[in-house]
Amino acid sequence: MNRKKVYAGIDLGGTKILAVVLDEQGTILNKSEASTNAHEGPESVILRMFDLIQRCLAPEHELASIGVATAGTLNAKEGIVAYAANLGWNQVPLGIRLQQEFGVPVNLENDANAAAYGEWAVGAGKGTKNCVYITVSTGIGAGVISSGRLIRGRDSSASELGHITIDWNGPRCPCGNVGCMELYASGTAIARRAQQLATESPDQAATLMKAAKGSPITSRHVAEAASAGDELSAGVLREAGRALGTGLVSIIHMVNPEVIVLGGGAANIGAPLLEPMNQAISDLGIASMKAGVKIVGPLLGKEAGAIGAALLVAAPSE
Amino acid sequence: MNRKKVYAGIDLGGTKILAVVLDEQGTILNKSEASTNAHEGPESVILRMFDLIQRCLAPEHELASIGVATAGTLNAKEGIVAYAANLGWNQVPLGIRLQQEFGVPVNLENDANAAAYGEWAVGAGKGTKNCVYITVSTGIGAGVISSGRLIRGRDSSASELGHITIDWNGPRCPCGNVGCMELYASGTAIARRAQQLATESPDQAATLMKAAKGSPITSRHVAEAASAGDELSAGVLREAGRALGTGLVSIIHMVNPEVIVLGGGAANIGAPLLEPMNQAISDLGIASMKAGVKIVGPLLGKEAGAIGAALLVAAPSE
Repeated sequence: MNRKKVYAGIDLGGTKILAVVLDEQGTILNKSEASTNAHEGPESVILRMFDLIQRCLAPEHELASIGVATAGTLNAKEGIVAYAANLGWNQVPLGIRLQQEFGVPVNLENDANAAAYGEWAVGAGKGTKNCVYITVSTGIGAGVISSGRLIRGRDSSASELGHITIDWNGPRCPCGNVGCMELYASGTAIARRAQQLATESPDQAATLMKAAKGSPITSRHVAEAASAGDELSAGVLREAGRALGTGLVSIIHMVNPEVIVLGGGAANIGAPLLEPMNQAISDLGIASMKAGVKIVGPLLGKEAGAIGAALLVAAPSE
Repeated sequence: MNRKKVYAGIDLGGTKILAVVLDEQGTILNKSEASTNAHEGPESVILRMFDLIQRCLAPEHELASIGVATAGTLNAKEGIVAYAANLGWNQVPLGIRLQQEFGVPVNLENDANAAAYGEWAVGAGKGTKNCVYITVSTGIGAGVISSGRLIRGRDSSASELGHITIDWNGPRCPCGNVGCMELYASGTAIARRAQQLATESPDQAATLMKAAKGSPITSRHVAEAASAGDELSAGVLREAGRALGTGLVSIIHMVNPEVIVLGGGAANIGAPLLEPMNQAISDLGIASMKAGVKIVGPLLGKEAGAIGAALLVAAPSE
């Protein structure tokens, strides 16, 4: 039988594990998902990953490689997850175990970098050479493709774009830096700022409090209130959008990209966030570099990380 | 006769043109220099470049390629200098002319990117995979090598590291952005800030004014006064160093490099600038990313751009 080469990709998250198997064109042939249950310990999680890959494989498939996207600090060369807070992992030889089980090349990659690669290779950045991927949710994740290659850096930790400074006189970030873009533009930052203003000026926060219905304020409540005409909420989103745009200007000046793929829950807020962001880019960018930069939404959905991880190993090695 | 393959590199600056010819190992075999005399017009400058290359070639040399490092906006693919303010050039087909004259492949590259590539390939970054080159003089120039490849971006304009924002509430930069690192950390910024403080508090500026001897204050005067114990000057350098360190933290978070090659006149100021810079990196960087980043001086001197330009064409094409 002439078997078909396939490429497995896994996104190992704190709550879920998602596995995909792709063909040579990057099309998903099968996918499979399970809860991570990290509390059961690394061995249990690793066995669950073995099982998810097996479930995605058909008899006619010949597995060629496995790519894993995961958060945390990696020692990618050695196939080790050095430290992953969301999993409670320390020095787990994940890559080595997968390699021993399946007998194929395995690559570990930072999850945001893997998603960036996926969106670039077969998603919203397809056909470009220089692509910035940024996802604005609770935090800000990002990855950069330059001249058709993923920027990895020394430890696959490059492109921590949420932690570039936009205000050197700003507050301390949990990462250690000060005035990080993430402190102003993430979903968490939007909710925190709205809560702060609502506490300071309760008389101006009626619409927002109504949207929150007694729960802690989230960025979604802020977006709802803003679209209902609430000025306090609109102001919070304007400031967050300006912060995001300011950070993107620094990124444009560093990367000189053709396209920025902007995703994540906060990005779904739409015009109240994106208009001030676009305005900041238009106001502040170097003319020749901001010209022609397209800002688009992602195309791959939640499989982006697993797809990117699979494609990164499938790509010719460097 | 068995001729020896050689690679020409030219650094085309506003005042001088520097040509080198390298062997396969990147060693300089010959070099030659002339005034640019840009006021004579592009044709005259191009003929001077032809002449400089010829002067570097020996009978036993077989010219394999030509690389040109130059400031300004490039259309590198078409071999055109789109716009270079320091030369007064608009749409000059420099690459095409060199290609026609010598019948070899020609590549145009941004001058800071070329210098970065030179320092990485055969200078202070040799042996690393991820290297940031930054030169702090009148302005700030920079280039980045990631996974052994120069980050070029869409128009060879990537790595405008002087124009990343460190203060989104800061003043407007001539580039259009606000609060650029260059506004706080360049030699020009150091001189401007010292002049401003001397005007505000002439009673505290005696040592600085003595160093300047009636001329306009330069960063060198500030450095001299600081090393003579002048507190005003030391304060200016502390602030500039902190700005440089803050910017480098954003850059470390984006690039995740092994080494930063820090050059330029202002970098020669030494401890009064570099200690606060190192302190800022130590205070602000993400622990795993700042750990082990070496900051070193450049090794190639003024030939870095020409050498890098030559090596970029000599490297296997992508």
